[in-house]
Amino acid sequence: DIVALLVQELPQPLLAGKTVMITAGPTREEIDPVRYISNHSSGKMGYAIAQAAQSMGAKVILVSGPTNLVIPHGVTTIQVTSAVQMHQQVMEQIKHCDVFVGCAAVADYRPLQSNSQKIKKSEQELTLTFIKNPDILSDVAHLSQAPFTLGFAAETQNIREYALAKLNAKKLNMIAANDVSDSSIGFNSEQNALSVFWPQGEKILAMTDKKQLAQQLMQLVAEQLKS
Amino acid sequence: DIVALLVQELPQPLLAGKTVMITAGPTREEIDPVRYISNHSSGKMGYAIAQAAQSMGAKVILVSGPTNLVIPHGVTTIQVTSAVQMHQQVMEQIKHCDVFVGCAAVADYRPLQSNSQKIKKSEQELTLTFIKNPDILSDVAHLSQAPFTLGFAAETQNIREYALAKLNAKKLNMIAANDVSDSSIGFNSEQNALSVFWPQGEKILAMTDKKQLAQQLMQLVAEQLKS
Repeated sequence: DIVALLVQELPQPLLAGKTVMITAGPTREEIDPVRYISNHSSGKMGYAIAQAAQSMGAKVILVSGPTNLVIPHGVTTIQVTSAVQMHQQVMEQIKHCDVFVGCAAVADYRPLQSNSQKIKKSEQELTLTFIKNPDILSDVAHLSQAPFTLGFAAETQNIREYALAKLNAKKLNMIAANDVSDSSIGFNSEQNALSVFWPQGEKILAMTDKKQLAQQLMQLVAEQLKS
Repeated sequence: DIVALLVQELPQPLLAGKTVMITAGPTREEIDPVRYISNHSSGKMGYAIAQAAQSMGAKVILVSGPTNLVIPHGVTTIQVTSAVQMHQQVMEQIKHCDVFVGCAAVADYRPLQSNSQKIKKSEQELTLTFIKNPDILSDVAHLSQAPFTLGFAAETQNIREYALAKLNAKKLNMIAANDVSDSSIGFNSEQNALSVFWPQGEKILAMTDKKQLAQQLMQLVAEQLKS
């Protein structure tokens, strides 16, 4: 009957009752009021994951760096700029979360000194010193009552090796790696492909649009969360 | 009569027969395949100037860094990423231009080394050396048959002093300065205000939307071009 068919085609509420926090987009680290250092993340993958988690019945908190994307319907969104701000917001809200998805391309480093006035160019060379930003993903995964933590690895070489090293070093429950040297996927593309690793297994999610991929990824998370 | 009224209200073809080249937006300087250094220019002011010049009868060439803006109708647009690319495109096309408007926020420096692989974060501190980019505005203004050259100065302090120094140092015909420390104007705002200086005079263009301001600015250019 039609009602049964409709019900069957709705996404299963695999994440009903769960709270999922997702970080998305790049961060921007200010050098002075005019200049910043950033990266090529568009935020599309993180926003697609937020929407997928929400459609699977989860309460979703999205902590987003600067993007041009429309906030997904029904998702609590916190806008931030820098890695330090993102770290602070995540740590304040993580306590009651069951799942953390660190999809943001958080800047690894920020300028040692942020200048309140524009740096005048006078020298032929300019040397800037950067210091390490807090590692949000690792800090979340190392909490005494850590949520199920899924990280991302954007790599240009030795994808599998780097992803597994990151999974172990940061004590993640799962990692999704993609090859950003392939311009048909990743960053600004509508499509992506992921190699997903967890302590007991791995799965290739073949190239498809980011919305489909987000659904498949969150289904993997839901399965591992139950097991 | 109605036809006369309509004709009267059309923008005067003050730039008829002129070719105007405009640079707009930020440039991005790659550190590695993932990271870049950039600035807060949205490109709105430059795109508004392109549209204004086109409406005033000019043939317009827009050389644009990465923006999210729609290309103005009837404007020849060349998309670039880095300062070196922008410099190359400008120099190739500048010969037959009567007016050059350097509105892009060109990165002053680029990384000395651009890495073809993503830099792995391991050190607590990271030191990057940057070298000076070509100065597009100055190179255009110093051509033996230079077009009328209008530059911009985005400043956070001593606006007038810096603007006049830049006008003289780069041998510009005109400079338009704005105070980027005021968040109600400049960069991502729809509005802007400009202090315009040229060797024989100066004029304040009060805060208004960027399209209006672009018209006023290009009228100033047209007046000086005739004189």
